[in-house]
Amino acid sequence: MQTLWDYRFAQRTQRMTGSVIRELLKFTEEPDVISFAGGMPAPEIFPLVEVEEATRQVLRDAGAQALQYGATEGYRPLREMIARHTARFGLRITPESVLITSGSQQALDLLGKVFINPGDRILVEEPTYLGALQAWNAYGAEYVTVPVDEGGMVTPALEAALRTGPKFIYVLPNFQNPTGVTLQLERRRQLVQLADRYGVPIVEDDPYGQLRFSGEHLPPIVTLDGHGRGHDEPRYRGNVIYLSTFSKILAPGLRLAWVIAPPEVIHRLVQAKQGADLHTATFTQMVAYQVAQGGFLDRHVRHIRRVYKERRDIMLAAMDACFPPGVRWTRPNGGLFLWVTLPEGLDAAVVLKAALELKVAFVPGASFHACGGGANTFRLNFSNATPEKIQEGIARLGRVLSAQVALIDGARPPQPERELVLSR
Amino acid sequence: MQTLWDYRFAQRTQRMTGSVIRELLKFTEEPDVISFAGGMPAPEIFPLVEVEEATRQVLRDAGAQALQYGATEGYRPLREMIARHTARFGLRITPESVLITSGSQQALDLLGKVFINPGDRILVEEPTYLGALQAWNAYGAEYVTVPVDEGGMVTPALEAALRTGPKFIYVLPNFQNPTGVTLQLERRRQLVQLADRYGVPIVEDDPYGQLRFSGEHLPPIVTLDGHGRGHDEPRYRGNVIYLSTFSKILAPGLRLAWVIAPPEVIHRLVQAKQGADLHTATFTQMVAYQVAQGGFLDRHVRHIRRVYKERRDIMLAAMDACFPPGVRWTRPNGGLFLWVTLPEGLDAAVVLKAALELKVAFVPGASFHACGGGANTFRLNFSNATPEKIQEGIARLGRVLSAQVALIDGARPPQPERELVLSR
Repeated sequence: MQTLWDYRFAQRTQRMTGSVIRELLKFTEEPDVISFAGGMPAPEIFPLVEVEEATRQVLRDAGAQALQYGATEGYRPLREMIARHTARFGLRITPESVLITSGSQQALDLLGKVFINPGDRILVEEPTYLGALQAWNAYGAEYVTVPVDEGGMVTPALEAALRTGPKFIYVLPNFQNPTGVTLQLERRRQLVQLADRYGVPIVEDDPYGQLRFSGEHLPPIVTLDGHGRGHDEPRYRGNVIYLSTFSKILAPGLRLAWVIAPPEVIHRLVQAKQGADLHTATFTQMVAYQVAQGGFLDRHVRHIRRVYKERRDIMLAAMDACFPPGVRWTRPNGGLFLWVTLPEGLDAAVVLKAALELKVAFVPGASFHACGGGANTFRLNFSNATPEKIQEGIARLGRVLSAQVALIDGARPPQPERELVLSR
Repeated sequence: MQTLWDYRFAQRTQRMTGSVIRELLKFTEEPDVISFAGGMPAPEIFPLVEVEEATRQVLRDAGAQALQYGATEGYRPLREMIARHTARFGLRITPESVLITSGSQQALDLLGKVFINPGDRILVEEPTYLGALQAWNAYGAEYVTVPVDEGGMVTPALEAALRTGPKFIYVLPNFQNPTGVTLQLERRRQLVQLADRYGVPIVEDDPYGQLRFSGEHLPPIVTLDGHGRGHDEPRYRGNVIYLSTFSKILAPGLRLAWVIAPPEVIHRLVQAKQGADLHTATFTQMVAYQVAQGGFLDRHVRHIRRVYKERRDIMLAAMDACFPPGVRWTRPNGGLFLWVTLPEGLDAAVVLKAALELKVAFVPGASFHACGGGANTFRLNFSNATPEKIQEGIARLGRVLSAQVALIDGARPPQPERELVLSR
């Protein structure tokens, strides 16, 4: 259909592209596809009974409020709950530093709207979360990248990037999307020190921090930047904006997340949110608040951890058994994702095409790279598929990869054979 | 708290201001204030029982889907339902022309993101909906205005505005926010013809169209622009983007609205929405779909109409009785608002200050004016307060206005006394 609108798209739409993941999600709705593509929680463990009970209670006790317009900042008791929760991980804030958003994606969008002038450079990890790039491309962001290894952002490479004058640093310290790696404690300290030395603020995106299966909890960057370091409870200093979400600890279908920021930033984000969607649904906010009463979310998170740990272990064991030599991958201590690196010369997009013929899906890594590269990488999600599907899907993927690796090996000088590692 | 962020706000934030209404809403949360300020539905008639029943059914029948991530376009059955509903008012569309948004405010924001380059001129009514200006200011929009009178947008003044080269026309044809006036049928036709002649597309914002209390339903602009005029069911031609919402016919606390646009525009809006909030809450979409089954919304809308008509009548009668000569106001056939014009020289902001001392609130008209002016106007909402509060609030406002009018009358040559109109 040709219309008058066709000639009227804004210039910024040239930089706005659909997400590969969202397009894949459509394909993966076909029931016989085993998808490691999305970042979806395990639907089997959604707390349906608790949500139903909470919903009934909200509608009976305060139904008119739940269905009415609400404050842009969010439902006050929920903001207070988040302030208390934040104190538990060691940071003292008031509810005035908390904004409820319609998912973390909205927090990223509002940050872009409030901070990014066209041409501003944002310092991001390579690879980094695709959704942040999608949100910020619309505001004309440019990027400078710092690589990621098994210890997270490679902070020794940070200083050179900081000298390019980025507007802010964007970092996912825990079980990073897409790689699954965690920023080491010493590197967290280096990051805070270097950011402070160069006067560059930080956006810390932490959707998965509570989903740790192994290893020790590490302090969020926002607490390391707190006043009174060394004391029991650092006060919020304001140079780190912290994002988290109910999507991974309760349910993404409610679209509920939060921002912790200094009040002056919250004030601007609220202005931006007024123009963007007025406020997040009162109904879902009150239901989430009600569900969380009596410590339910703590118990539920423990359950999620057990389920995802099992799935991660099954996926890693299957990969050890089925993936050919020359293919490497991360071994995350939590979260939803792991990251596969193919031998140079293999293209994950080509592998995906072959994989889809065997009805198995993943996300090629290139789109997580802000400045190009990563053609030989891809992301696997281990939270959504059942253990049986994980084993079957990885076996299929192993066949695809073996065939692809054999193709390039045939074109190369022979290499010493690597022993198959069947487990660790 | 001074932070590194303070020096980093984007240039566009200079044009982003908080909404006077949202700020007022905070004040009006105090229980003894009678507020005619917000645009809130009557909370007494929210269908709590039906929403509770629908929620239970959704969670029991498809709970895992309701709490999971969903498609950016929206819940497919809800999009199909909206396509069927659209056919009822005389326009044939497919679900591919429907996008679910997180309230109409998000639709306005996404339209801004997809169409408005900095400096682009948007043709709006004067006065127009404040939320559209808020959304589009962030994208650097400029405005050209066409005045509104009792018959809606004054289309004889439209041609001069069209010759300034606006990107699109934004119009609220039914019970306009803020004035409550309705665009006459003949003017609707003129609008479509002139827009077509100048090749300028239209955004038709219709949140209140179903809430008509008196007079005859008029065809939406989008149907007048349809192919096959004169036939029974015009096909969608695509030059008019149509917006509507569940906020006024079900509940605003669910944050659910929709856009009807040509598929190519929907495609771009979906890309923008991916970056903005991924998708609207699956849970609330499925609940709204479930509530609507069996024709409930039709029955509910009839109930809303009866209640709002009563409140409008009570407000108009009270104004007739209590407002001093020289003050004029509109007499809407539907919707939620009416519009007051004070004698020249009176400032609604000054009146508001005096009114707040008597614990009654409204929204001064200046902020609804894209290009300045309107200092002597204000908006009154008649849907939210109970009949008793409406009478008491208008009586208080009458005292404030009489005092203010007396002040300027004292400074003026005496005028012939107008008879008090007590009712119509």
